[in-house]
Amino acid sequence: MPSVPPVPAETVTTHRVNYSETDQMGVVYHARHVVWLDIARTEHLRVHGFSYKELEERGIRLVVTDLQVRYRNGARYDDVIRIRCRVQDVGSRRVVFRYALELAEDGTPIADAETTLISLDATHRLTRLPADVLAALGGKAGA
Amino acid sequence: MPSVPPVPAETVTTHRVNYSETDQMGVVYHARHVVWLDIARTEHLRVHGFSYKELEERGIRLVVTDLQVRYRNGARYDDVIRIRCRVQDVGSRRVVFRYALELAEDGTPIADAETTLISLDATHRLTRLPADVLAALGGKAGA
Amino acid sequence: MPSVPPVPAETVTTHRVNYSETDQMGVVYHARHVVWLDIARTEHLRVHGFSYKELEERGIRLVVTDLQVRYRNGARYDDVIRIRCRVQDVGSRRVVFRYALELAEDGTPIADAETTLISLDATHRLTRLPADVLAALGGKAGA
Amino acid sequence: MPSVPPVPAETVTTHRVNYSETDQMGVVYHARHVVWLDIARTEHLRVHGFSYKELEERGIRLVVTDLQVRYRNGARYDDVIRIRCRVQDVGSRRVVFRYALELAEDGTPIADAETTLISLDATHRLTRLPADVLAALGGKAGA
Repeated sequence: MPSVPPVPAETVTTHRVNYSETDQMGVVYHARHVVWLDIARTEHLRVHGFSYKELEERGIRLVVTDLQVRYRNGARYDDVIRIRCRVQDVGSRRVVFRYALELAEDGTPIADAETTLISLDATHRLTRLPADVLAALGGKAGA
Repeated sequence: MPSVPPVPAETVTTHRVNYSETDQMGVVYHARHVVWLDIARTEHLRVHGFSYKELEERGIRLVVTDLQVRYRNGARYDDVIRIRCRVQDVGSRRVVFRYALELAEDGTPIADAETTLISLDATHRLTRLPADVLAALGGKAGA
Repeated sequence: MPSVPPVPAETVTTHRVNYSETDQMGVVYHARHVVWLDIARTEHLRVHGFSYKELEERGIRLVVTDLQVRYRNGARYDDVIRIRCRVQDVGSRRVVFRYALELAEDGTPIADAETTLISLDATHRLTRLPADVLAALGGKAGA
Repeated sequence: MPSVPPVPAETVTTHRVNYSETDQMGVVYHARHVVWLDIARTEHLRVHGFSYKELEERGIRLVVTDLQVRYRNGARYDDVIRIRCRVQDVGSRRVVFRYALELAEDGTPIADAETTLISLDATHRLTRLPADVLAALGGKAGA
């Protein structure tokens, strides 16, 4: 009998720092990491079987309500960043992602982060995540 | 009899360079200027009596089809940039804006630019600019 | 005898949302707020008597180590955002800023945020804030 | 005898559109393409044997002086964009890149673009491109 792990495993996305992401300190400007988190969780969802794009087409939007980033070391132009992403917690209308950003070359920690997202319908009201999405995120339908 | 100038006068918008706009060369990254052009033409429209936001609410979108920028001098963090904007040419479905960017402090030229925008309706089809918008831009209804 | 308040008062900066800051949900993308925080604390420093630009020229860099944002309501294109900023805590090498973002028009809360910054010298080592900067931020030289 | 093609061939870079790149029209905001051009020419240089990062470490900076973009079709969230890049013209102190942006899926044209870059030294003065860089770009040392 096939079994599905209840909690999706960590996924890994890589991103090469481009020039537009640097600032005059010679490191990546701290708002750029926030975009990387978005890219990473989109890929996490894709690996787990659905695309965020399709989710929006089904009328569901995942909206960030909380963001926390702890910056550890500056990332530099042309560095390849590895973004490890996993679901920390998931409920029927809410999902929390955790991220670890590090240099692909040697694992130097760049930042740790967490984002909380809620599920809204087309009229911007809180709504339950579809059962398949909830399952893909590692949650239980009755939760 | 009141007369309306056929071509709207030049407008001036100012913008202070923030840290996120710099890059590791210590100057403003060249894609940021493109946003400033957008801000300047929005203010130009506002000065001439209508808001771009309301235009979108009426179902009209102005979409950039051509962009040209000639960069003259680097802009730096905390500089105040003056963006002079005027309508270079306007037709029933198309408008061309010209811009001169310079340091507010001493007029040092930062860049010259031109953007062409077309008028699309909600279904993304080319459509006539409303008569009041056309007039505000300095065009003639029969053009 | 003139007295100087030990903790600088709250400052207020306003920012009009431009088109580049929106996303396809029709609201401001959540990474943009992080730039607004930067703009607000730069203005806060300016109001309190020194420019961050000059601080860098003196070899001091304030680097963000922690960022927290709680998003409350979507900001929309052309909205004017009021960013209230104050120093929450300051030590000899570290300063914490708190921010409240709201619609200028009616005070609708947009987000609350906090950033921690540390003081680094030109070689990227932790260093004491100059006494005048520390005082301007409301800290005590001996702290 | 080994022969080296005098003009480097076209290179192809791909980029998946992330959410931060969209705007409230539901397409990619027009300033984002400018960053893609930068990414594409960096990869073009890498394919031709040198990294732009190393070029900067050698004291040379390539600075954009002219930018032209013709937008053809909107790119959408999650689209994979193919950016074809080639050197259009190269002299001892100047290089012109041409780009064609298209949907990877079906080749739908997204934009055509051209950027001109000049070679500056650490003191921001016009300087000759190093011979190896010039050769990699398809230019002749005596040009």
